[in-house]
Amino acid sequence: MPTFKLVVAYDGTGLVGWQRQAAGVSVQGLLEEALGALEGRAVPVAGAGRTDAGVHAIGQVASVSIDRAIDGSALVAAINARLPAAVRVLEAHEVPTTFHARFDARSKTYRYRVWNGAIANPFERQYSWHVPGPPLNVDAMAAAAALLEGRHDFAAMQATGSDAKTTERVVFLSRVHYGNALLRDAALITYEVTGSGFLRHMVRAIAGTLVDVGRGRHLPEDVSAMLASKDRGRAGPTAPAEGLFLVRVDYDHP
Amino acid sequence: MPTFKLVVAYDGTGLVGWQRQAAGVSVQGLLEEALGALEGRAVPVAGAGRTDAGVHAIGQVASVSIDRAIDGSALVAAINARLPAAVRVLEAHEVPTTFHARFDARSKTYRYRVWNGAIANPFERQYSWHVPGPPLNVDAMAAAAALLEGRHDFAAMQATGSDAKTTERVVFLSRVHYGNALLRDAALITYEVTGSGFLRHMVRAIAGTLVDVGRGRHLPEDVSAMLASKDRGRAGPTAPAEGLFLVRVDYDHP
Repeated sequence: MPTFKLVVAYDGTGLVGWQRQAAGVSVQGLLEEALGALEGRAVPVAGAGRTDAGVHAIGQVASVSIDRAIDGSALVAAINARLPAAVRVLEAHEVPTTFHARFDARSKTYRYRVWNGAIANPFERQYSWHVPGPPLNVDAMAAAAALLEGRHDFAAMQATGSDAKTTERVVFLSRVHYGNALLRDAALITYEVTGSGFLRHMVRAIAGTLVDVGRGRHLPEDVSAMLASKDRGRAGPTAPAEGLFLVRVDYDHP
Repeated sequence: MPTFKLVVAYDGTGLVGWQRQAAGVSVQGLLEEALGALEGRAVPVAGAGRTDAGVHAIGQVASVSIDRAIDGSALVAAINARLPAAVRVLEAHEVPTTFHARFDARSKTYRYRVWNGAIANPFERQYSWHVPGPPLNVDAMAAAAALLEGRHDFAAMQATGSDAKTTERVVFLSRVHYGNALLRDAALITYEVTGSGFLRHMVRAIAGTLVDVGRGRHLPEDVSAMLASKDRGRAGPTAPAEGLFLVRVDYDHP
């Protein structure tokens, strides 16, 4: 019963997210149906991160145990043949049977994309948050982002009503990049964050806070006071799902 | 009755193309409805290029005459408020009343995007042609593309059954670019072409021919013989619509 580590990319537009739900199309459900058809039995698939409805992934990781001995690239082709084009398995590697995509993850990297320009970009409408108005202060956003690196209590930047046992997380890297824009007088601003783990809506709360800083509503250093307050109401809004990408999940042993 | 030059971007996915059709949603139809609602009368809109169903635009140009005196940026906002997010007017400039987006165009620039990798990219599925298999020979494609520059008869690279009066066109620039890929072991290959005018399906026929050259089915220099033959059957297939973008339309007087 070999176990495989799958690397999965998906366009989350119109999906209910990673996790199987009572209604709607989920990535987990699609993978479980594809593998179930291959194996002729129910095949549970575990994902590294539970991306929300509308959130995308370039490098989600899933683990699955199947009955047959099969080559990784043959498994990729067999699963992809049973998936819609919005979801693709990029890689499949046989791993020790003890491997679990979620429990063994050492770090995850997310990217949040902001389209900052008066006019929305039709090609970015499902892949970024459109922030109109004057240009954001990207230097201030970068300074605020850097203050999030390290071990902090992120209670002020999680979904309200969450019941995580501990709200302390370690952020290894928290950086803002400034991209070239497809359209004139507009900019693509990208936030990338790598951490040991993330609370529910944490990256989107950080992104909403960074945009508030970019708008001049807060100074970069205010971010530290927000964290210390542990008060969700002090930080910025939860940025919309469509700007968020799960980029990578790293493990101690590949 | 001021005349405006509009610059328009659209995600062509699910649209029937630029031109109003008996059924389906067209960009021209959307603009005419938005302007009709603003003006309280039927407002005809002329486009520089009739993009086909599924083809995208970053810089389509349209001309329209309206009754009211209005500032360009106010007109942009008023039209965009009445359009779906997939279509955006980027600019509106008042021009001489004799201006016509199509008849006055001096050159147009199109881009064709090819995703060359074993596994399709979910984020490129509506914006590129997925060409699986071994890496395309990009140098050969670039050499073939360069041979298309100049004045040529493009009868071999137009939609079959076209009734264009003349099939001679001038190509000012015809270049292949090699982009970095989002996913491993894959490449984004971009073809960009600027010309005085284009026959129906001409850019897509060129793209299909260049991919055939990249696959080694033809030598770069075979492209000249294809043109000389004036035989559509000699050139490559018509590449799919979703990889094509109308990038820019240029005029003698802005």
